[in-house]
Amino acid sequence: MMNFPELPLLAEPGLAARVQHLLDHKTKPLGALGRIESLALQIALIQGVEKPQLADPQLVVFAADHGVSRRGVSAYPREVTPQMVANMLAGGAAVSVLARQHGLTLSIADCGVDAPLARGALDLRIGPGTGDVTAGPAMTVDQATQALRNGMVLVERLPGNALLLGEMGIGNTSAASLLMQRLTGLSLTDCVGRGTGLDDAGVARKVAVLGEALERHAGAQSPLDIAAALGGLEIVTMAGSVIAAAAQRRVVLVDGFITTAAVALAQALCPGVLQACVFAHRSAEGPHSRWLAHWGVKPLLDLDLRLGEGSGAALAWPLLPAACALLADMASFESAGVSNRE
Amino acid sequence: MMNFPELPLLAEPGLAARVQHLLDHKTKPLGALGRIESLALQIALIQGVEKPQLADPQLVVFAADHGVSRRGVSAYPREVTPQMVANMLAGGAAVSVLARQHGLTLSIADCGVDAPLARGALDLRIGPGTGDVTAGPAMTVDQATQALRNGMVLVERLPGNALLLGEMGIGNTSAASLLMQRLTGLSLTDCVGRGTGLDDAGVARKVAVLGEALERHAGAQSPLDIAAALGGLEIVTMAGSVIAAAAQRRVVLVDGFITTAAVALAQALCPGVLQACVFAHRSAEGPHSRWLAHWGVKPLLDLDLRLGEGSGAALAWPLLPAACALLADMASFESAGVSNRE
Repeated sequence: MMNFPELPLLAEPGLAARVQHLLDHKTKPLGALGRIESLALQIALIQGVEKPQLADPQLVVFAADHGVSRRGVSAYPREVTPQMVANMLAGGAAVSVLARQHGLTLSIADCGVDAPLARGALDLRIGPGTGDVTAGPAMTVDQATQALRNGMVLVERLPGNALLLGEMGIGNTSAASLLMQRLTGLSLTDCVGRGTGLDDAGVARKVAVLGEALERHAGAQSPLDIAAALGGLEIVTMAGSVIAAAAQRRVVLVDGFITTAAVALAQALCPGVLQACVFAHRSAEGPHSRWLAHWGVKPLLDLDLRLGEGSGAALAWPLLPAACALLADMASFESAGVSNRE
Repeated sequence: MMNFPELPLLAEPGLAARVQHLLDHKTKPLGALGRIESLALQIALIQGVEKPQLADPQLVVFAADHGVSRRGVSAYPREVTPQMVANMLAGGAAVSVLARQHGLTLSIADCGVDAPLARGALDLRIGPGTGDVTAGPAMTVDQATQALRNGMVLVERLPGNALLLGEMGIGNTSAASLLMQRLTGLSLTDCVGRGTGLDDAGVARKVAVLGEALERHAGAQSPLDIAAALGGLEIVTMAGSVIAAAAQRRVVLVDGFITTAAVALAQALCPGVLQACVFAHRSAEGPHSRWLAHWGVKPLLDLDLRLGEGSGAALAWPLLPAACALLADMASFESAGVSNRE
């Protein structure tokens, strides 16, 4: 059994009231910056200061292969995982372009890609992908524990105070759907989407395959057992990173469906980490909306994105330093000599 | 009568198909970047090139006072207009902070503020605000014509190829509501919101006052006559800037309710300018949603903003260069050696 870090109490009532007071006296109608104000407040609470600043943001793409990808659950072939890792490292993937555009340091963590370690990728490899979850567990409990540790150590070595989550792994919407079903209790069909572009018959096949997996692993009950039985190596590693980031009061910017699965697993293992998570966007992958609604979470963007990689997190990123700048630098009615409402 | 520039034909069918082909062969599932793809396509069509680039973006805040602000239609007193202009010039307003944050050049155009010209503001003054629209026209037709010219000349002198619209003027949601009613034909109550924070009684008073104005000016029929009868000096000037920007194939990034009124007026005067307009966000000012729905337009952000100033445009801005970078710099399946779907 692992020992998880104690999470700092993010919701200091005194701090929240002080930050809200600052926001309410800025030169604008009360609440007129809408969700940018609640974003600024959340970042202040994560950092535990009235005027938070974000430094050296790190976008990590967690990559791995999935045994279930051999069961026809994806529109793309399995070899696309290492090909896309190479594309990301070469700078041609969407996440590479967006990281350059927004000043994000991009790292690719190979958590178990079914190909030799790519030059430039971080070696967090547990094995050449997960096992086929319809035939056995995705990984052993020892491997799941090691993946969590890998993710935690990775974050402890990263500079900065913001972690943007990304992922790559053909078949990983299947792992995310399985985790979603077990962690939320919603019906399997509510947890399955089109992934990279399945048609209706493909979705029906995916539901059938994933139903087999759920039946086989019905005995897994603890979050760690569920992670081992159903998880992806990149998802479990990412969950470790989320736990470490939250413990260090870093802001975690969550991308789409897969990264939400990692956050959910982290929250199940270590309740409280959700407080450190900002949800970048509502993915067009159907179950993602349901998951956010299940938690009552409102994401920042809603642009019909369904690429993954961390592309949605990268697109939303500029809103976070903007929220911090508004909190730190806007004048108050008093300091600017502006009349308040009558 | 003014002569408006001929608008270039933005929708070249050959170009749209070529850009769509580029997007469809990038290393991502088809359409997976959602509305960022349609944004990239729109900017390409505005510029008339396959790989558009954005340079030296200009955020202009058009400021003016409104005679109707003496009729109790706003939660804030009239003197807030020049006070906020000073705050913007001093760098303490939300739009000042966001412009610095995102590398936007900020200009404040005084189109008719009821105070001496502020040091650092551009002098586009027509007079000390509009007349009370319940008692007479907002301005003469000659003044409206001059305001349109001022806006056109302003843009012709600005560098860069992107114009972000902002505004400041206590009472200007009233002018926008009046223009919306006349230009869309929707009911007045559908066109009126809480502005900077009216309660229900305040909204009822605002509807009654604006109803008087509509009745008085029912005879105004042409877009120019409607602009003169009901418009704000900042709104009419901004409409001129939108026309000039569209004619020069600049991207126009529209903020919230007031700037949408200026775009609508520009579109009525010079049909086609809408093609050059990207809508930054859906404002929490109720009628803005209805206006966007009336046009069938989807904005980029939906963050409950209702500040104006151009703050929503500034917040959305990074999505535009990101869309251009994705179109220009992402690898194709072929160039990256990535397998396409099976």
